Amino acid sequence: MRLRRVQGAAEKIESSNYVIKNPKDYKGQFTNVFKNNNPIYIEIGMGKGKFIVENAKKYPNVNFIGIEKFDSVLVRAIEKVEEEEIPNLRFIRIDAKEIEEVFFKEVDKVYLNFSDPWPKDRHAKRRLTSPEFLKRYDIIFKDKKEIEMKTDNRKLFEYSVISLTNYQYEIANISFDLHSDQKKDNIMTEYEEKFSSRGQVIYFINVFK
Amino acid sequence: MRLRRVQGAAEKIESSNYVIKNPKDYKGQFTNVFKNNNPIYIEIGMGKGKFIVENAKKYPNVNFIGIEKFDSVLVRAIEKVEEEEIPNLRFIRIDAKEIEEVFFKEVDKVYLNFSDPWPKDRHAKRRLTSPEFLKRYDIIFKDKKEIEMKTDNRKLFEYSVISLTNYQYEIANISFDLHSDQKKDNIMTEYEEKFSSRGQVIYFINVFK
Repeated sequence: MRLRRVQGAAEKIESSNYVIKNPKDYKGQFTNVFKNNNPIYIEIGMGKGKFIVENAKKYPNVNFIGIEKFDSVLVRAIEKVEEEEIPNLRFIRIDAKEIEEVFFKEVDKVYLNFSDPWPKDRHAKRRLTSPEFLKRYDIIFKDKKEIEMKTDNRKLFEYSVISLTNYQYEIANISFDLHSDQKKDNIMTEYEEKFSSRGQVIYFINVFK
Repeated sequence: MRLRRVQGAAEKIESSNYVIKNPKDYKGQFTNVFKNNNPIYIEIGMGKGKFIVENAKKYPNVNFIGIEKFDSVLVRAIEKVEEEEIPNLRFIRIDAKEIEEVFFKEVDKVYLNFSDPWPKDRHAKRRLTSPEFLKRYDIIFKDKKEIEMKTDNRKLFEYSVISLTNYQYEIANISFDLHSDQKKDNIMTEYEEKFSSRGQVIYFINVFK
């Protein structure tokens, strides 16, 4: 994603009620944030937030937390919802690596949408489906573990299918051309809308254990 | 594959030294056919045989057995090699379902190339990667189990990736666009040559357990 400097982004993030300012203070206690025991789904690398915002509106009985490290895109997500009140939606500004400092046995599902492919072998452990990250998810998942991933990057997807299944995840659903299947409940990300409209194949996998 | 009646096919099959006439007689004893202890790789549904014939020539230290149920295509495979002597190649004319009556703990690798997708749910168990067939392979494999599959059929491939990994196969290699990876040692089937030249994506998976 191309990043622009956004004027006043830091202030907007600081003043938004959607943003959890000191997320590590809530570790293991995110039910207190939402004041209910509904499941918690997180999207790691939510970008401008279309996917998680639409999910939060569509599924009010699930709590959604969008994680993003870049101010300049996080602020776009905030702008989408600042006129509304969506009680089951929050954002956290951290690097993905920090999730194990923020959550503990309380996440029900992880979404990974159009993650950075980190194409070089020496960067493999930065991929969000690397064993290094799968270990981090083990720490934050409550009981059943569920990961759902979409990407247009073939190499990342090949890597991920191998990595997830070698890590004993079972595949519940897989598609090598998500949009030709016309899944009616698919919520698209900004990136997905742009790339699928150009005829780019979108890969999808849903796994659990 | 479109089947034509081939004049004299039955006679040609009957008289070919490449064809094992009573394969069930060799059950558990295929080393006697080849008179060596080299590994045995089988291709189920070899069609006109290009893939297995080229493999047999390229890898003389592996024994290859092509399985095909239709006379009209089996005879095309015979015609490819009748002028040559390829000691590590044989053909068997049976239905795939019968493999467990023909082999017992002696196969090292199974190739499935462009198998019939059997798209209807009620025919799922006829797919060569269904649990029903994976059970049959368990019977015929020697020690380590290895399956390698190519197909242009997306739905069959999605089904197969799930079926194989649910059956505890580990993925060694996978590609959602084999030819763009330009694998230099890929031996193409007749079907593959035709379809990939039309820009059709070829899927590939190699699994073991």
